[in-house]
Amino acid sequence: MLPRFFLLLALLCFGAGLQGRADDGYRLWLKYDELPEAGLRKAWQAQARGIVVERNATPTLQTAAHELQLGLQGLLGRPVPIGAAPGGRGSIRLRVAPDPALGQEGYRITSQKNGLEITGPTDAAVLYGCFALLRQVQTGQLPEKLNLSSQPRIQYRLLNHWDNPNGTVERGYAGSSIWKWLELPDRLDPRYQDYARANASIGINGVVLNNVNASARYLTAEYLQKVAALAGVMRPYGIRVYLSVFWAAPKVIGGLPTSDPLDPQVQQWWKAKTDEIYKTIPDFGGFLVKANSEGEPGPQDYGRNHADGANMLATALGTHDGVVMWRAFVYKANSKGDRFKEAYEEFQPLDGKFNPKVLVQVKNGPIDFQSREPFHPLFGAMPRTPLVLEVQLTQEYLGFATHLVYLGPLIKECLEADTHAKGPGSTVAKVVDGSLEKHSLSGIAGVANIGSDRNWTGHPVGQANWYAYGRLAWDHTLSSAAIAEEWTKMTLTREPQAVASVTRVLNQSRDIYVRYTTPLGLHHIMGQSIHYGPEPWLEKSARPDWTSVYYHKADAEGLGFNRTASGSNALSLYAPGARQVWSNPATCPPDYLLWFHHVGWGQQLSTGRTLWDELTTRYYTGADSVLWMQRQWEQAKPAVDPELHADVAARLRIQHREALWWRDACVLYFQTYAKRPLPPGLPPPARPLAEIKELVDIYQLR
Amino acid sequence: MLPRFFLLLALLCFGAGLQGRADDGYRLWLKYDELPEAGLRKAWQAQARGIVVERNATPTLQTAAHELQLGLQGLLGRPVPIGAAPGGRGSIRLRVAPDPALGQEGYRITSQKNGLEITGPTDAAVLYGCFALLRQVQTGQLPEKLNLSSQPRIQYRLLNHWDNPNGTVERGYAGSSIWKWLELPDRLDPRYQDYARANASIGINGVVLNNVNASARYLTAEYLQKVAALAGVMRPYGIRVYLSVFWAAPKVIGGLPTSDPLDPQVQQWWKAKTDEIYKTIPDFGGFLVKANSEGEPGPQDYGRNHADGANMLATALGTHDGVVMWRAFVYKANSKGDRFKEAYEEFQPLDGKFNPKVLVQVKNGPIDFQSREPFHPLFGAMPRTPLVLEVQLTQEYLGFATHLVYLGPLIKECLEADTHAKGPGSTVAKVVDGSLEKHSLSGIAGVANIGSDRNWTGHPVGQANWYAYGRLAWDHTLSSAAIAEEWTKMTLTREPQAVASVTRVLNQSRDIYVRYTTPLGLHHIMGQSIHYGPEPWLEKSARPDWTSVYYHKADAEGLGFNRTASGSNALSLYAPGARQVWSNPATCPPDYLLWFHHVGWGQQLSTGRTLWDELTTRYYTGADSVLWMQRQWEQAKPAVDPELHADVAARLRIQHREALWWRDACVLYFQTYAKRPLPPGLPPPARPLAEIKELVDIYQLR
Repeated sequence: MLPRFFLLLALLCFGAGLQGRADDGYRLWLKYDELPEAGLRKAWQAQARGIVVERNATPTLQTAAHELQLGLQGLLGRPVPIGAAPGGRGSIRLRVAPDPALGQEGYRITSQKNGLEITGPTDAAVLYGCFALLRQVQTGQLPEKLNLSSQPRIQYRLLNHWDNPNGTVERGYAGSSIWKWLELPDRLDPRYQDYARANASIGINGVVLNNVNASARYLTAEYLQKVAALAGVMRPYGIRVYLSVFWAAPKVIGGLPTSDPLDPQVQQWWKAKTDEIYKTIPDFGGFLVKANSEGEPGPQDYGRNHADGANMLATALGTHDGVVMWRAFVYKANSKGDRFKEAYEEFQPLDGKFNPKVLVQVKNGPIDFQSREPFHPLFGAMPRTPLVLEVQLTQEYLGFATHLVYLGPLIKECLEADTHAKGPGSTVAKVVDGSLEKHSLSGIAGVANIGSDRNWTGHPVGQANWYAYGRLAWDHTLSSAAIAEEWTKMTLTREPQAVASVTRVLNQSRDIYVRYTTPLGLHHIMGQSIHYGPEPWLEKSARPDWTSVYYHKADAEGLGFNRTASGSNALSLYAPGARQVWSNPATCPPDYLLWFHHVGWGQQLSTGRTLWDELTTRYYTGADSVLWMQRQWEQAKPAVDPELHADVAARLRIQHREALWWRDACVLYFQTYAKRPLPPGLPPPARPLAEIKELVDIYQLR
Repeated sequence: MLPRFFLLLALLCFGAGLQGRADDGYRLWLKYDELPEAGLRKAWQAQARGIVVERNATPTLQTAAHELQLGLQGLLGRPVPIGAAPGGRGSIRLRVAPDPALGQEGYRITSQKNGLEITGPTDAAVLYGCFALLRQVQTGQLPEKLNLSSQPRIQYRLLNHWDNPNGTVERGYAGSSIWKWLELPDRLDPRYQDYARANASIGINGVVLNNVNASARYLTAEYLQKVAALAGVMRPYGIRVYLSVFWAAPKVIGGLPTSDPLDPQVQQWWKAKTDEIYKTIPDFGGFLVKANSEGEPGPQDYGRNHADGANMLATALGTHDGVVMWRAFVYKANSKGDRFKEAYEEFQPLDGKFNPKVLVQVKNGPIDFQSREPFHPLFGAMPRTPLVLEVQLTQEYLGFATHLVYLGPLIKECLEADTHAKGPGSTVAKVVDGSLEKHSLSGIAGVANIGSDRNWTGHPVGQANWYAYGRLAWDHTLSSAAIAEEWTKMTLTREPQAVASVTRVLNQSRDIYVRYTTPLGLHHIMGQSIHYGPEPWLEKSARPDWTSVYYHKADAEGLGFNRTASGSNALSLYAPGARQVWSNPATCPPDYLLWFHHVGWGQQLSTGRTLWDELTTRYYTGADSVLWMQRQWEQAKPAVDPELHADVAARLRIQHREALWWRDACVLYFQTYAKRPLPPGLPPPARPLAEIKELVDIYQLR
């Protein structure tokens, strides 16, 4: 049952002369290489002479034991047998046991007289405990005084795959989809199990298999067999599968004349379909829906609203243990207003109208996964509806797979943002985990950055984003820096100097990216459609809200989107406590300034510089900082696998070139409005704007 | 400099207890596992104590030495040093030496007094000789009396990649493109070198990097840097890079108002562009062009013909050592005639009008890579023009990556077809290798089945098609069965019983596929657009020649396309000697019958059965034969890597299900015309036609 890579690993670890082999990244953070420190190894060996699990353990509990064995054998360099008998001193006992303090999925690791015990109220909880113990070993902790417990703060911790049936991945930059639909259900790629293992190791418990721009085919009997086969691989790892739903499925595959959610035939079709699904996949998780958004059909096609649609699906789910996640990512095509406000305006009035099985899924910010957004105004504004936080791990707007951007800080920034919905401290995290309004359902979704590239994520550091998302979904109180350190130690190196330089890079990377692309609250000025490279000059597109000028509003006077009362008044969507700091350009943090204000080029900012000087300085220091990242990465070289080091180093070279591309494009373009010289010390770009536009055009060619 | 997989391999080979590790297919046929037979190993060890190569060897000669070392060390299980001194007995000397008998790329391996010598007139020739020697060792030959020589019969032996800049592969079924354009030129994926190595090992010496539906971006300075980086990886392996050309490039990236090949500005643009390319990539191979075909722009947009276009590009190449490969795959959109004839009608009159640097690239058959086609009528009909044979390795019409179809027999069938252009024996092979008309240029192109899947080709046996193509491109007199055996021994097993069952499967697989999909000369009745599954009932499409009924012409009387004088008269395009056997339905081989004749359902065939009975019998025996393939494969199980065996076994299960799908669809559909019962002994399909159509429709959904 051991998958290829672990088998190979085990062989390597027990083989001779195996130092220096290249690391292709396939093993992710589950690198169970033998601990180099003899003392540490010995200490753990004494605590891990065997694993004890009852003979008739559930598949998940058996999986837990095997995963623990696999990891320990690699890390400790010797066999760790699994047995049913209580064994002697130093055995690790896995046990399902009621524990009201741990919820459904929490685990406890304690030192008992005869050895460690990993317990939890469910078999999945014990599995999480096993991975937590392995994390202790991998990160070099000593096995002293173990008394750990942890439980997830959010119930549904999902990856959303934007994977299409033809194998492409919308906004995917790591190769094709890992799901091989034409091979399913007959062939199960060994990679599926490795995927499940990786997710379980960080507490992810649900997977939406297909793109929200969904094909109806997944709901056919033919495809449900394929979905069921994947569900069978995920199940022992505590992971349930979900499907994105094509709203017009009753018409397209059901042969009905309508998809009106209030039509009894439509309702009946969904009811029957849902029953069929649960007959095929008894632990099916539920539906994710993108409706009446970006051309997708939806209940509004029939004069109904989102609640009508979501509730119909929830009713179809009936007593099945599944939920509906209904996305709030909507904005009208012909808007002359402010896209910032549209999801709010459509959804906020529906608060309280949703079936209890419905969660509304809201992106972290009001536009679309920009490098920095204010938190979405719906958070805190729909107290009677559980809201799922949707973050994007695939770097659609953050440099694809060639820019090193660690997303921990971005996700944390949103989670820690204070909605003031119920006074200070009403953070997005509390909205999402349900604690603010005592919701019984809670959820979080990460749009996966996973593809069939050997290393899963294209950029090796993309793995850190998958990892950080899972860890924060489990416990949003963890610090982004602590997770970065944990990931680095598990994945790259435990050499202290190298850990320090790598984590410095990770922790700074997002701010650096913002600086050289969209400083001071600029947003949505990237290359159209593909979202690659700069295109702030974009004036015409299929929709006005797909241009750049719609967002940055540069003119002779200044720059930025006035969203105060004298402008679109989008600020009014926030609770007074939240909007206060943003409403006044003098107090608005510079990072958010142009999100909310049209600021004069010569206006002095809180930084002491004029807008123009601050803007250009950030572009220049941002691009320069990539050189700093390169130097930091270089320092870690002796401690990191050579092939992996070279991979990241090469990507950092690309990143610097593209940072200069962004810098020059934006500085020269905005200068055509500002008509000001660069501040002293900043050398003007060596190339004219026209040349940069040509370069951008290349990447827009078919 | 050793790439990851070989390094790992070497470590494994010298490690302890390393039996039973799973084989993920990445190493292709270059599996340098230690020879299990001690005697064989010993015999070769005595012949391979070291490798001798001059100190200042060219990069390609150095590569030859390193590749030989890599292979021998793995196979023989001990170090094989490289040195410049002539060494003692048992050394292998690599030497470039003039040898008029060997052409440019031929090699000679001879036993000399002090050991083996591998010689050739160029460094690339020696490289090929090294791989030939490794093949001897890998396939278990004894090193006795070695006196081998071989030279390629065709000069340009190319892979054509239909890879798009966004990473998708047109008609690719093995993941995304292996070319990571956004990472180039800074990052060179280690896979590029492994790709070059694999190609060099079978004699492929050119690679067209991008899809014939080409983006203009490859011709920009930005992308030429990326192309140059790839060329740098290919160069030491004797491989040149080529580009597919977007005809409208002078307009799209050159800013000209036209792409008219007779316009001096256009000519100047191409001249300058070509000079720029050769400045960047001195050994650039040349251009591949799809023009005025399936919506692509071309010289006809300006009232010019294909020769005008091709010659303009050839003139632009000037004295650079490059060629133009101009595709003859054209057919008009609004045709009421016969697509079979259109390429001929457009190109044959141009014979003699092409610049000497132009080769016309012709698909093996007149329609489009069907499972069996008569040879293309242009072969033999353009004596004054060198013709490139284009075959398709990616299984667009042959079951994607889930059907085991070994293409050796298909390629050989075309090569051995007799055009009778200059009397009997005027085979397509002689047209293509230039010997028939004494052309100085000759070429062959295989549309690659390569993607970023770990095993390169999706279906593990897809590797055999890449391999067989290369071997036949080198020497088209090799037998398809001999190549199958060679590949099997290098890739899967040398256990004689297993080799026998595996090669039985390979050798029969193409005929079996034809039987259950398009027996008796049926063609182009597959699912529209995606070309997956059966859709013989397809009556409407964007073009009449994209439907199925256009090709099979089923009616109450019978089935098949009348291409005799009483029909489209496409047969008249062939030389009398070639068309004779096909013209008379009584003598026409059943395999080609419906390509040329509309045959009555009750007509008795040469097989003794009526058309209907023969047709249905073939569908049934074809589908049943997949069960035979499964049994044969099962017999090889003990001798094949378990994971790889399971992979193919699973795909054979899918193949059987889909064979039944094809069988039932076609039998039931054609029965609506034939109105005859199935012959005795063939059980009627258990499902109605409507149900099958529904299943087909699922795979047509967005």
